[in-house]
Amino acid sequence: MSAASQGRRRLGIGLVGLGRLGRVYARDLSTRIAETRLVAVADTNADAARDVAAEFDVPRAYATPREMFTDPAVDAVVIVSPTHTHLDVVLEAVDAGKPVFCEKPLALTLDECRRMQEAVARRKTFFQMGFMRRFDPGYAAARLHVAEGRIGTPVVFKSTSRDPYRPSLEYANPASSGGILVDMGIHDFDLARWFMGDVATVSAIGGTLAYPELASVGDLDNAIATMTFADGCLGVVDLTRNGFYGYDISTELLGTQGTIRIGYLRETPIVIMTKNSVAHDTVPYFMERFERAYTLQLQNFAQNVLDGRDAPVTIHDGIEALGWRVPRRTRADQGTR
Amino acid sequence: MSAASQGRRRLGIGLVGLGRLGRVYARDLSTRIAETRLVAVADTNADAARDVAAEFDVPRAYATPREMFTDPAVDAVVIVSPTHTHLDVVLEAVDAGKPVFCEKPLALTLDECRRMQEAVARRKTFFQMGFMRRFDPGYAAARLHVAEGRIGTPVVFKSTSRDPYRPSLEYANPASSGGILVDMGIHDFDLARWFMGDVATVSAIGGTLAYPELASVGDLDNAIATMTFADGCLGVVDLTRNGFYGYDISTELLGTQGTIRIGYLRETPIVIMTKNSVAHDTVPYFMERFERAYTLQLQNFAQNVLDGRDAPVTIHDGIEALGWRVPRRTRADQGTR
Amino acid sequence: MSAASQGRRRLGIGLVGLGRLGRVYARDLSTRIAETRLVAVADTNADAARDVAAEFDVPRAYATPREMFTDPAVDAVVIVSPTHTHLDVVLEAVDAGKPVFCEKPLALTLDECRRMQEAVARRKTFFQMGFMRRFDPGYAAARLHVAEGRIGTPVVFKSTSRDPYRPSLEYANPASSGGILVDMGIHDFDLARWFMGDVATVSAIGGTLAYPELASVGDLDNAIATMTFADGCLGVVDLTRNGFYGYDISTELLGTQGTIRIGYLRETPIVIMTKNSVAHDTVPYFMERFERAYTLQLQNFAQNVLDGRDAPVTIHDGIEALGWRVPRRTRADQGTR
Amino acid sequence: MSAASQGRRRLGIGLVGLGRLGRVYARDLSTRIAETRLVAVADTNADAARDVAAEFDVPRAYATPREMFTDPAVDAVVIVSPTHTHLDVVLEAVDAGKPVFCEKPLALTLDECRRMQEAVARRKTFFQMGFMRRFDPGYAAARLHVAEGRIGTPVVFKSTSRDPYRPSLEYANPASSGGILVDMGIHDFDLARWFMGDVATVSAIGGTLAYPELASVGDLDNAIATMTFADGCLGVVDLTRNGFYGYDISTELLGTQGTIRIGYLRETPIVIMTKNSVAHDTVPYFMERFERAYTLQLQNFAQNVLDGRDAPVTIHDGIEALGWRVPRRTRADQGTR
Repeated sequence: MSAASQGRRRLGIGLVGLGRLGRVYARDLSTRIAETRLVAVADTNADAARDVAAEFDVPRAYATPREMFTDPAVDAVVIVSPTHTHLDVVLEAVDAGKPVFCEKPLALTLDECRRMQEAVARRKTFFQMGFMRRFDPGYAAARLHVAEGRIGTPVVFKSTSRDPYRPSLEYANPASSGGILVDMGIHDFDLARWFMGDVATVSAIGGTLAYPELASVGDLDNAIATMTFADGCLGVVDLTRNGFYGYDISTELLGTQGTIRIGYLRETPIVIMTKNSVAHDTVPYFMERFERAYTLQLQNFAQNVLDGRDAPVTIHDGIEALGWRVPRRTRADQGTR
Repeated sequence: MSAASQGRRRLGIGLVGLGRLGRVYARDLSTRIAETRLVAVADTNADAARDVAAEFDVPRAYATPREMFTDPAVDAVVIVSPTHTHLDVVLEAVDAGKPVFCEKPLALTLDECRRMQEAVARRKTFFQMGFMRRFDPGYAAARLHVAEGRIGTPVVFKSTSRDPYRPSLEYANPASSGGILVDMGIHDFDLARWFMGDVATVSAIGGTLAYPELASVGDLDNAIATMTFADGCLGVVDLTRNGFYGYDISTELLGTQGTIRIGYLRETPIVIMTKNSVAHDTVPYFMERFERAYTLQLQNFAQNVLDGRDAPVTIHDGIEALGWRVPRRTRADQGTR
Repeated sequence: MSAASQGRRRLGIGLVGLGRLGRVYARDLSTRIAETRLVAVADTNADAARDVAAEFDVPRAYATPREMFTDPAVDAVVIVSPTHTHLDVVLEAVDAGKPVFCEKPLALTLDECRRMQEAVARRKTFFQMGFMRRFDPGYAAARLHVAEGRIGTPVVFKSTSRDPYRPSLEYANPASSGGILVDMGIHDFDLARWFMGDVATVSAIGGTLAYPELASVGDLDNAIATMTFADGCLGVVDLTRNGFYGYDISTELLGTQGTIRIGYLRETPIVIMTKNSVAHDTVPYFMERFERAYTLQLQNFAQNVLDGRDAPVTIHDGIEALGWRVPRRTRADQGTR
Repeated sequence: MSAASQGRRRLGIGLVGLGRLGRVYARDLSTRIAETRLVAVADTNADAARDVAAEFDVPRAYATPREMFTDPAVDAVVIVSPTHTHLDVVLEAVDAGKPVFCEKPLALTLDECRRMQEAVARRKTFFQMGFMRRFDPGYAAARLHVAEGRIGTPVVFKSTSRDPYRPSLEYANPASSGGILVDMGIHDFDLARWFMGDVATVSAIGGTLAYPELASVGDLDNAIATMTFADGCLGVVDLTRNGFYGYDISTELLGTQGTIRIGYLRETPIVIMTKNSVAHDTVPYFMERFERAYTLQLQNFAQNVLDGRDAPVTIHDGIEALGWRVPRRTRADQGTR
């Protein structure tokens, strides 16, 4: 007996960028998301393209996105290449008439952002911005609880992001990363807008306190930003690159009737108790914490394109989360220990 | 440019049984495990077979395992059909020379167990028993910690399993389920052996305390079993079908220098605090708790077959975890409220 | 201006026994409980009596309880002398017509228990048995929650007691301590009766697993007892002397609609997170955990006597919590590693 | 036999102010602290003075502090009267040559602070400022851990204070309370200095977001202040009057090698789990959270005076924790929802 294998409709994805996160996306798009087929990959590194194609049975690997966009099997584009390439790749995808998913941050200059925004608007391109935290089951449930009034009206937003170790000096360089407030803070700023609405004012302090060598490239390792929202509510975001004990992301919404906290500090459900100590492990890094959010985000993108729904996270969200680009006032308050 | 898609070697799996868990296995084997291809499914329910085959692009669907075992694309067999069918399916798979993965419980009579064991031994069939908790990252890490001496020598084993609601009376019937001590306790008894070694004596009490209607089919809803191990160490397992608040599985190993606890009570990383209450949600059921363990278990099976390694969980483990079949002495102490 | 110091009515207490716990009681009775005055202490150790009297401004110190019971300032008696002295002291207090508070365990032989019980009954003496856990705010609140139906009907009782280190061999000797099931288990057995009602059957296993030297005096360091209650409900108590990580007392009541857990593992509200570890301290020993319960218990005794209320914990409770004296069946299952 | 009651040396305390906290201090000084005797109380409310004296057997009650300071039994003075009275009472106590303990805040004008500081300096009076959190076992242990280098060098200070309900409008009036940043924040600012050293810059935002009626007296219900320390390290304090779920005080010190958190959200060690919810209670208010800290603080004061030690918390600390009096810049950023 032979099976009649029609299956469901799947979106043919062309993936741009095969770095660390690009490979995760390749795996998700080819094996974990029922709504997608990874039909093509593009990376200037031909070896990476060939390897990923082989590993995940991807029919075609391209050296450039432009070439890939002419492939008729490519129904939609997922962009996870370096930030400075976003402008060109997005414009080409828009020209080719492909729906676009673009990883954050959108760009590092306001001019680039505007050019993409105009192209998307002109061509009415479907464009979904990547902010995976919005798809984390914890954050998603929290937003639902808030919408249901579980904590009354939210009046204070607090968010903390901690990386477990210092990035390379090359990576940390604000010229490419945008600096700690953009590179790390962008997720918290996006959450702030998602939960609380438009930001009215921002102020920040920062310092190079744990890794003095970061000063050589002009980056900070710790920063605290406060903000007021358009309706007068308050917010605070604190960021650190020396979350030595683990990757630690937590957010709180304090309301008029209660509070809601989103966290996750433990990887395994184990507690070890020995003489004078009770200990459990922590979450190593962002992939362990947000693996499922990344998958759900790409699945949501595919469903939106297939079903003709609007993008829940827009290019406007991508621009707003950048600041633009967060307080100049910061400088005056920076210190070095 | 076209991709040279060689990819890695994959094990062609024939899946027997497409009930609730069977469909999860179908998804895992076809989309989540790089080492496997789901090449065939078999179920007496032809509709189920056709649906699953269509959903996961499985080349062939069969009405019987016997037919499927003649398919040369089937390199190995995964059995997740009802317990009473295990004997026939396993014997046919062994006859066909296929490596076997069999879901727990192995069987409900000792005679059936022995016939399978003999067949497996005679034909030197690769046979891996399914006890997914051993592959849960929490339990696996705990065993490693114990092996490293983190708690000294473990001397007391404690394990609790709680189901969040009553099973159907049909399911609960001890004639098919084996009763609460087998149906629920089998995982805890397997963990007991895995962590502590051979069991010497077992004693149990039980009652039908929360769902009086279970008495009509002869099942209990609560039971507590104590055991001594061959080396004199102690163990206790308590089971309930009225874990009303959620699916709750926890185990503790108390050692001479400390203790280790494995649990997991929360599904999302959210805490909501309102007037006089701090609340978070709980794990709904076993699939939310052990989803990853199930996937890792099947992946481990495929890797073992591909690499020619011995099965880490054997048919002997499957037999021993059944008791056989746990204390007769129980009856005398049973009560009904 | 001079103060008119009438104050409230206070009960004049005569305290028998000035060991470790006796000194705590002396402090509580003289400085922490508004309803009591410590008017006399008695201990065969004259130095101890003099020291405690001096430290807490106690008007009189006696060498024997008998002498003290003739003191008209002594309105009521608190007995915290060694268990083997309880019979004589209680009989003398009863003879002297004094209301009595007696620390657990009541006695180590059933004959002694009965003689005290008869004397108390004959003279209609107010007699309050000491089981401080019933006065712990956590346990007290739990019982209230259960009574209010928060978890439906409780059907399973689970309790764990762990001491952080081995007692002296002299102390552990079952001839004076009663052995682990009496010495440690008495609190859990009393809780079992308090929450669940009369016990119908008990069975236990035990072993000398962590401190082989305990075998020389005939004591165990680990034991697990299961019990059925008169209404068919189930219970389990596990005890250990190697709770190496801290003093750990926890109890759970599983009901038909939910569960309630009483614990307390942390002394200070501190968590320290460093590379790969999240740690907090634990409760060192029983005084840190139950300090407030001890105070509340004595205060309750004084209020009951002053207000003419019945004792909430009776000599009957004292006898029943002993077992009497827990399962003989235990022996057969004992092991030594 | 009669007891030779020499006892230990005790400090005769004169207590000024018998409001809510004053009564707690009266109880502690008379019954819980071995080093003190409460020999006199003073309050303009003669009834309150008489009642407290009667309840705690205090020999003398006075209508004014000045009168009380002439009492030779008064070895030292504890001041817990309203803030606006501190200046007069302190100056009189200094004149009378009495060692002084003064509850926070020191005063509401800088001029008053300076006059007290000068008097204390001129007369070399022993003066201990009241900041009870420093005596909380949790905060005290945290400081020790930090000093021991458990988290490397602390670089970021974070502290949160939440009151469970709105104070009366009369109390909240910034003219007497100092406003939320002084009234609530003073403890966090003192902790900031205690853990991190001198503050260099402060900036704050605030709003009247949960209780619009507070605007009528000019107070805020939420505020967030960021600060940089003299060595360039960073700090943030957030305050709310709508901690609806309970009294919640938490502090974190993030270091170069780890982090330490001090909290305490639970009053009883109980968790109740019912359908879809896991819940425990919270700490009702400051007395439940810091009861022991208050007692330890007064005990420490008495020991310092008796042993001739310097005050661990000085009048300088009292002044610095006030700001002085926190950012003017705040105003511009205030919002009203």
